[in-house]
Amino acid sequence: MAAALLAEGRAEVPATFSLFIRRLPPSRAFLVAAGLDDALAALADFHFTGEDVATLARVASFEPQFLEWLRDVRFTGRVRAVPEGRIIFANEPLLEVEAPFAVAQLLETCLLNIVTLQTTLATKAARCRHAASGRTLVDFSLRRTQGADAGMKVARVCALTGFAATSNVAAAAHYGLPASGTMAHSYITAHESEIEAFRSFVQSYRGDPVLLVDTWDTPTGIDHAIQIARELAAAGRHLAGVRLDSGDLVAESRLARDRLDGAGLTDVAIFASGGLDEYEIDRLLGAGAPIDGFGVGTNLGVSADAPTLESVYKLVEVDGRPVAKRSPGKATLPGAKQVWRRPGFAGDVIGRLGESPPESGAEPLLVEMTPGADSVAAVDPTEALAKARRRFESEWTALPEPHKRLVDPAGYSVELSSGLQALSRRPVRAGMTAREDRSPA
Amino acid sequence: MAAALLAEGRAEVPATFSLFIRRLPPSRAFLVAAGLDDALAALADFHFTGEDVATLARVASFEPQFLEWLRDVRFTGRVRAVPEGRIIFANEPLLEVEAPFAVAQLLETCLLNIVTLQTTLATKAARCRHAASGRTLVDFSLRRTQGADAGMKVARVCALTGFAATSNVAAAAHYGLPASGTMAHSYITAHESEIEAFRSFVQSYRGDPVLLVDTWDTPTGIDHAIQIARELAAAGRHLAGVRLDSGDLVAESRLARDRLDGAGLTDVAIFASGGLDEYEIDRLLGAGAPIDGFGVGTNLGVSADAPTLESVYKLVEVDGRPVAKRSPGKATLPGAKQVWRRPGFAGDVIGRLGESPPESGAEPLLVEMTPGADSVAAVDPTEALAKARRRFESEWTALPEPHKRLVDPAGYSVELSSGLQALSRRPVRAGMTAREDRSPA
Repeated sequence: MAAALLAEGRAEVPATFSLFIRRLPPSRAFLVAAGLDDALAALADFHFTGEDVATLARVASFEPQFLEWLRDVRFTGRVRAVPEGRIIFANEPLLEVEAPFAVAQLLETCLLNIVTLQTTLATKAARCRHAASGRTLVDFSLRRTQGADAGMKVARVCALTGFAATSNVAAAAHYGLPASGTMAHSYITAHESEIEAFRSFVQSYRGDPVLLVDTWDTPTGIDHAIQIARELAAAGRHLAGVRLDSGDLVAESRLARDRLDGAGLTDVAIFASGGLDEYEIDRLLGAGAPIDGFGVGTNLGVSADAPTLESVYKLVEVDGRPVAKRSPGKATLPGAKQVWRRPGFAGDVIGRLGESPPESGAEPLLVEMTPGADSVAAVDPTEALAKARRRFESEWTALPEPHKRLVDPAGYSVELSSGLQALSRRPVRAGMTAREDRSPA
Repeated sequence: MAAALLAEGRAEVPATFSLFIRRLPPSRAFLVAAGLDDALAALADFHFTGEDVATLARVASFEPQFLEWLRDVRFTGRVRAVPEGRIIFANEPLLEVEAPFAVAQLLETCLLNIVTLQTTLATKAARCRHAASGRTLVDFSLRRTQGADAGMKVARVCALTGFAATSNVAAAAHYGLPASGTMAHSYITAHESEIEAFRSFVQSYRGDPVLLVDTWDTPTGIDHAIQIARELAAAGRHLAGVRLDSGDLVAESRLARDRLDGAGLTDVAIFASGGLDEYEIDRLLGAGAPIDGFGVGTNLGVSADAPTLESVYKLVEVDGRPVAKRSPGKATLPGAKQVWRRPGFAGDVIGRLGESPPESGAEPLLVEMTPGADSVAAVDPTEALAKARRRFESEWTALPEPHKRLVDPAGYSVELSSGLQALSRRPVRAGMTAREDRSPA
């Protein structure tokens, strides 16, 4: 397409593309916008190396003129986007790119991939946080994420939504997060006995250890942990907790709490892991399980119940004229846009860029960004994440509870402005030509 | 754990870990083994740079002795594995690593991540192939895969299972695959009219083009494509096909076929895309839709109905002694293993390594591999993939149809050998110690 646009002399015509989520997955009434910092970093770094161009020449048949154009192309456009950590809803543009047509078109796959993954995972992580009601959450997902790349991003968005730590050491180092992990069953099975395994572990482990107590028989494992807690106390140290990774976590956590309390170890915490997600955390806490922290892995790491979003990147304006497509079920709204939020999450309004706010106090969500300048992700990923996290905390506190429900959440009101309605509402006739369908500039 | 093993003087004790899938996801009766070449490449490249070690020292508190050990550690063990492209079933080891304990333990997350992703995606791709019954399949998934890494791997395993091409140009170049793509709706909406967009596109496109006909009104789009086909024919060129990306694909593909045939264009193919997966392809073909090829995207790229596998990497032998864990629902089988396949997929037998085959003609699935030597992935990913693809073709032809069914597939018989049963069957008492639970060497 870019080659065709160049051949037609239209590669440099100004075009606006809008990235939004067409429909929310089942059980979701909101999304957490994420991935913008990486998207901006990608825009700032957009270029084709000599090797890339040689590869393209080998894989497909292109005019030399196009290959030359690729060699020099950079992102020279403008971006308006919703800052990371904000709550957004279906059909609201997350990101709008205004750039030379061929450039904006070439960015489609890259921008969609980055924003879709992180927004999917951040939303899942926020749901886990809602279910955990203030208990500690740790990201345990790296071993089964869809690739190493996804493993880094899930650690990032977990931190963004308030997780305490990650088991991904590389992500902890890259994003400045606390790293966390505990022993595995293999460590226990490799020792002469469970108590010897515990003793060896706490000897080498410098912090306050957490002991995995379900390798063979959980009640015995808890008793062994109690014995270790006493040995540690005698040495002036502290057992942080025990971890349960299998079985009936309600019954086993109660048993563990009873025995620990009975031994005077009321400050030893109970951690749970193994096949958890927001639904299971909610069920466990609803059943009164005395669990203080959750290690959440695979179902979070792949967003198992909704592993993707219907994200799209659509041309909405070209050469100053709003455009749209009318494909059944996939129609788009023409023109560059702004999203206004009424105070207190009282409803959003999607309008045309430049329209007045729907009421005084309404806040515009899309903010002008300069790739490379506003994006500090490439130079300081820790600082970018810290800003996004503060933004999320403020949004999360304000978002009314009914929208956060795990099942059958209350829908949120998103209207179209009168200006956008007027632009979109023109009658569609079968057999119309594109020209007839064009909205006036 | 590795630091604790080193402090105990057990880092170098020989240990065997077994990687297998505990249970198959719903609707799956088989899996396609994939990811081995990348796993072997990772083993061959296993090391910690000076920077990695400095990072670890910063993130956590380790003894200098352990950090020194990390600086020199390499993979020095042995690997037995099921070659890529073979069909496997639940509980069958895909990969067994025999290495110094601390080394084998450190590899867990990396090996699980690589093998889980590619096996998940290869299985999904094989199901799409089954549904397509010989029609052309193209991987369209990159824009919504869970990261760029996953986007490369899905293109790879699609080729492994018989897809014709991928829209991921980087993967096409890296793995030596045909690259494929067509125009997007944005290209059409940016032109004065649909027919002008088609005309411009075929002028710049050097091959046989495929035209996207559903941007505004599909019947009109088909008529425009017919007109272009005639113009191309007059210039000695050929229209490869039309693509439908929305609406009622059964009705629209029939309409397209009727009009194309009516115009004498029986050799112009019909491609479909938009929210497809194996279930939808099966439904379309079952309803008699005259579709010649499918572009399969998001649902394939994230394996939407089963985005992960219950893959585990378990210690099964240490210092020559078989070990197991007994956690409820997560018990493991002790000892190093071999999997035997009876001829004609008549059943598999999981046995102890070194046991005799269950019958003459039974084939061992796990093969000794040397990381770096057998793995040509790092040096020639194209050749490694070609070998895996030939292996898959042979397996796929032999696998009986009932196991391939998309819904309620027939289960496949996997037995334990008498030797493995004897080793595993020892009674478990509550409160036993690890020593009592140990199987005899």
